[in-house]
Amino acid sequence: MTSVPTDSVLPLTFLGPEGTFTESALLKVPGAAALARIPSNTAAAALNKVRNGEAFAAMLPIENSIEGGVPATLDAIANGVELRIIHEVVVPVSFVLVARTGVTLADVTAVGTHPHAWAQTREWFAAKLPLATHVPANSTAAAAHELVAGTSAFQAAVCAPLVAEQTGLNILAAGIEDNAGAVTRFVLVAKPGSLPVPTGADKTTLAIPLPEDHPGALMAILEQFASRGVNLSRIESRPTGQYLGHYIFSVDMEGHIRDARVAEALRGLHRVSPDMRFLGSYPRADGQPPLIRAYNSDVAFAEASTWVESLLV
Amino acid sequence: MTSVPTDSVLPLTFLGPEGTFTESALLKVPGAAALARIPSNTAAAALNKVRNGEAFAAMLPIENSIEGGVPATLDAIANGVELRIIHEVVVPVSFVLVARTGVTLADVTAVGTHPHAWAQTREWFAAKLPLATHVPANSTAAAAHELVAGTSAFQAAVCAPLVAEQTGLNILAAGIEDNAGAVTRFVLVAKPGSLPVPTGADKTTLAIPLPEDHPGALMAILEQFASRGVNLSRIESRPTGQYLGHYIFSVDMEGHIRDARVAEALRGLHRVSPDMRFLGSYPRADGQPPLIRAYNSDVAFAEASTWVESLLV
Amino acid sequence: MTSVPTDSVLPLTFLGPEGTFTESALLKVPGAAALARIPSNTAAAALNKVRNGEAFAAMLPIENSIEGGVPATLDAIANGVELRIIHEVVVPVSFVLVARTGVTLADVTAVGTHPHAWAQTREWFAAKLPLATHVPANSTAAAAHELVAGTSAFQAAVCAPLVAEQTGLNILAAGIEDNAGAVTRFVLVAKPGSLPVPTGADKTTLAIPLPEDHPGALMAILEQFASRGVNLSRIESRPTGQYLGHYIFSVDMEGHIRDARVAEALRGLHRVSPDMRFLGSYPRADGQPPLIRAYNSDVAFAEASTWVESLLV
Amino acid sequence: MTSVPTDSVLPLTFLGPEGTFTESALLKVPGAAALARIPSNTAAAALNKVRNGEAFAAMLPIENSIEGGVPATLDAIANGVELRIIHEVVVPVSFVLVARTGVTLADVTAVGTHPHAWAQTREWFAAKLPLATHVPANSTAAAAHELVAGTSAFQAAVCAPLVAEQTGLNILAAGIEDNAGAVTRFVLVAKPGSLPVPTGADKTTLAIPLPEDHPGALMAILEQFASRGVNLSRIESRPTGQYLGHYIFSVDMEGHIRDARVAEALRGLHRVSPDMRFLGSYPRADGQPPLIRAYNSDVAFAEASTWVESLLV
Repeated sequence: MTSVPTDSVLPLTFLGPEGTFTESALLKVPGAAALARIPSNTAAAALNKVRNGEAFAAMLPIENSIEGGVPATLDAIANGVELRIIHEVVVPVSFVLVARTGVTLADVTAVGTHPHAWAQTREWFAAKLPLATHVPANSTAAAAHELVAGTSAFQAAVCAPLVAEQTGLNILAAGIEDNAGAVTRFVLVAKPGSLPVPTGADKTTLAIPLPEDHPGALMAILEQFASRGVNLSRIESRPTGQYLGHYIFSVDMEGHIRDARVAEALRGLHRVSPDMRFLGSYPRADGQPPLIRAYNSDVAFAEASTWVESLLV
Repeated sequence: MTSVPTDSVLPLTFLGPEGTFTESALLKVPGAAALARIPSNTAAAALNKVRNGEAFAAMLPIENSIEGGVPATLDAIANGVELRIIHEVVVPVSFVLVARTGVTLADVTAVGTHPHAWAQTREWFAAKLPLATHVPANSTAAAAHELVAGTSAFQAAVCAPLVAEQTGLNILAAGIEDNAGAVTRFVLVAKPGSLPVPTGADKTTLAIPLPEDHPGALMAILEQFASRGVNLSRIESRPTGQYLGHYIFSVDMEGHIRDARVAEALRGLHRVSPDMRFLGSYPRADGQPPLIRAYNSDVAFAEASTWVESLLV
Repeated sequence: MTSVPTDSVLPLTFLGPEGTFTESALLKVPGAAALARIPSNTAAAALNKVRNGEAFAAMLPIENSIEGGVPATLDAIANGVELRIIHEVVVPVSFVLVARTGVTLADVTAVGTHPHAWAQTREWFAAKLPLATHVPANSTAAAAHELVAGTSAFQAAVCAPLVAEQTGLNILAAGIEDNAGAVTRFVLVAKPGSLPVPTGADKTTLAIPLPEDHPGALMAILEQFASRGVNLSRIESRPTGQYLGHYIFSVDMEGHIRDARVAEALRGLHRVSPDMRFLGSYPRADGQPPLIRAYNSDVAFAEASTWVESLLV
Repeated sequence: MTSVPTDSVLPLTFLGPEGTFTESALLKVPGAAALARIPSNTAAAALNKVRNGEAFAAMLPIENSIEGGVPATLDAIANGVELRIIHEVVVPVSFVLVARTGVTLADVTAVGTHPHAWAQTREWFAAKLPLATHVPANSTAAAAHELVAGTSAFQAAVCAPLVAEQTGLNILAAGIEDNAGAVTRFVLVAKPGSLPVPTGADKTTLAIPLPEDHPGALMAILEQFASRGVNLSRIESRPTGQYLGHYIFSVDMEGHIRDARVAEALRGLHRVSPDMRFLGSYPRADGQPPLIRAYNSDVAFAEASTWVESLLV
């Protein structure tokens, strides 16, 4: 089964430029390699292509095990015309140091890359190139492309392995990331209308504005999950931008909207936070089914409904 | 509207004998006075008459503002073939001291009555008849009937005003209860099949076995109410009889099973405590409608269901 | 170690008359057999003897695995001058049917006993003496004493084995209780001033008025236990007598007031329900130590206090 | 009263370079203007100056009403040798567009600034300079300094008003931010040893690792606040960097560690999450005292302690 329609006349988009980790992630989606791919400069631009019908779906980074949630993605999904996450991909974060042919490590005095990549390779540079300075770039791939164009104020770039492959730049060093186990999670976002079928190992993503600025509001939200036995696998707070202390909680829960316990939790959350957004139900990248107690199973929900119906006489 | 079918060929029963507060309460049910009434010796016997088709409904005391829950009633309803509360009546508890004609206060050395009635008139006797001893009877009315029969080992009885009226016994003193505001709540219990229509001011009664003997079980139960905004107006623990520390909670909640928030709470409770019993939804005696937040209204539940349905594409 | 001072010049009292299960329970208290014992007619009278300095301590039934909490005891302890439970005893409930010499089972047409005892032997009588009628008595022992006195309107009595032993009445049948495993729990109540030392397997009893008549009050109470990892082994609601729906919760918690987690829970409960009563910390009858997570141990509480102190610079 | 020792021989540091909003915030701290100030390149570098004794305290942005928490600051405070927040400042975010003398709006084709500043002025540029491209800089001030140095690949920079003042650059447009009400919150961080005195309107900041990766962990944490009536004014999740789904919660609570309810909540949190960090108690920038119920006041805590002490006999 593919996650994207292989006969789509629409291309896929991703947070570019070419060669980013995001493009690598997109290529792991079943069926994606067969379709046209176009890069977007920002998360918002990528999602607008989807909203405008210029792309079938957009691949974006949403969470990094080192840096945390990706605000631009979280905010772009939570606002504007509604969209749905239909697939997730988790990829290890591994960096290479690249340069044009002929440049050696000894020649490198300035390194171009995105600040996050720079932050995640500090130890390697402290050990191997302690005097190198950082030139910030909009993405790791952008820095590499500047090298190729010969316009850069730096001699080397930190980027994803895919860029080296695509550009033919020379790899001076590989695996230079400080945290060997770091991963980034990416999500593929499409228009509503392609709700993935439940697999038994699914996730559902929500954006829940805290309904009132009162002490118990967060507990009231959590209670809607707890009373249906729904576990959270991610919870991030994002400011609404209205005033300090006003939040939207970005949440991943275990299960699919077609699971009875998830559907009922969604109904409860919608009541207490009517502006809540459903951002999709989709298969988990790790394929790990959740542990569901018998009394929170679909069977238990159905049985409870039948029981209550039987009392209405 | 009557609460009992006035053309019923079946009689009503009540915790007897004739003249108890329970019979007084039964007479307050719209339509009840027109039907035949038969007393029962115990709560269990009264409910068995209903279960066996010998009576349409049984009136029983369930709660007293001084003594608390009435264990015999709570246990008899919570066990055996299922029944439903269809009506509640709250009556003030006021006692009279009665004797046969010719007997005066000065003649009274022993007083027959039920231990509860004796407990609730201690101050009056301490002040007026400090030397009188108590002879226990199975009910206040039974004591009065013994007086009438002339077989009693006492000269006076403490009972409900209705008994004096019915027996023609002489009232030596009225209003002798120590607590002027004491009330008893009675419930009319019938077979399933006559669910009262919602009035907007209803109660629902449940018997909820604590599902497991673990610390959080009671909080898990309360969470099912809280997450739907359902308030409790009574909560009593009763032993299951299996071992110390094993309880059934007898609970009254605000609202009717046809209210969306109540129905969903019942479904949730049924999941976590599958042996829970629904003991009926019926109009509140005080006619007081509950305060329901907008997000717990039927409209909010319906809207939430519509919203979730709209996402399933 | 004895639980009562063996050189006490004051007697012990118990819910009488002689031969009740309560006296049996009292005799199981280490040191009790050596002291004088006087019966009391009611729980309130027994506690008043303690309050007035006429008795060192009073033994009372507090809970029965079949009938539930004993309201008279719960209410008598929760009101009036403060007292403390210093010991608990759990005894199996086993009944004998007794008669005067020469009376056989075939002669028995009426049986005297306390209504609870009658209720707990219904099956035996239905099988063996289906026609026997019940004559209510104030206690099982009282019925037996009436037999001895020869003043009774019944030929046999249902009572505790101890009564048969004390009175020399003839045992017509033993072990006639319907529930073989039924037990009653008794507590020994004294004036404050003899707080038992912690044993590692203790209980603490409280009477907690619900602070306000609002939906979340019970959850707020339970939260004070939960946030310190304190488990409840009994929870009973009792009416305050003020109006329907106004409750005191009678609660047993695992642990001793000298345990840090219990002391902090008590402080929290005292804040939210200032009229709460501490009714004693005492060894559990079953000697079963509770399961305490490391982070709720005395060590963890002490370490947390030291940590917070260290921050005050 | 000053918040920094005016006779300090140590300078203050701030997230530089000169002219950032952070320096503006630092100048609002009573006593700060009298001391030497040195910029730092990163939050981590600033805090290391404090840890190494090169600076008395460091001013850092911690939260922005548009962008949310500042990860670099949150992470730098939550890790390494312990530090304390001793002061907070909230400043409105207002941007100016600056250029060298002689440059007009019509000359501007490229604009240098930090990506956050660019994000917060998109609407202004879309309306006034739709064709201008963005050149990312490490800070708004850095972009302005490049202009001054004449080395920039852009003709204008977006920065704080203070930079224009300090550098003498020409202001082409002021107040160009899209959100008029946006604010940034800054904190002044010092070594432990200068705990500010309580003012009655204080905040306490914590970094709380979720103790176990289980569904109820966050509720268990929130319960420690709720059971002492402590409100949260900020809650942010940050990854620990160990694996996806492993979080540290960065939390601001109302009150001072010297308030009894706060101290007890800290003790409780320390038990359930022993690696929790106390990051300081300090006066609120808005001077707003919290609403404390009587039963959560210092008096109530003291009274509860006295009461429990009185029971230990």
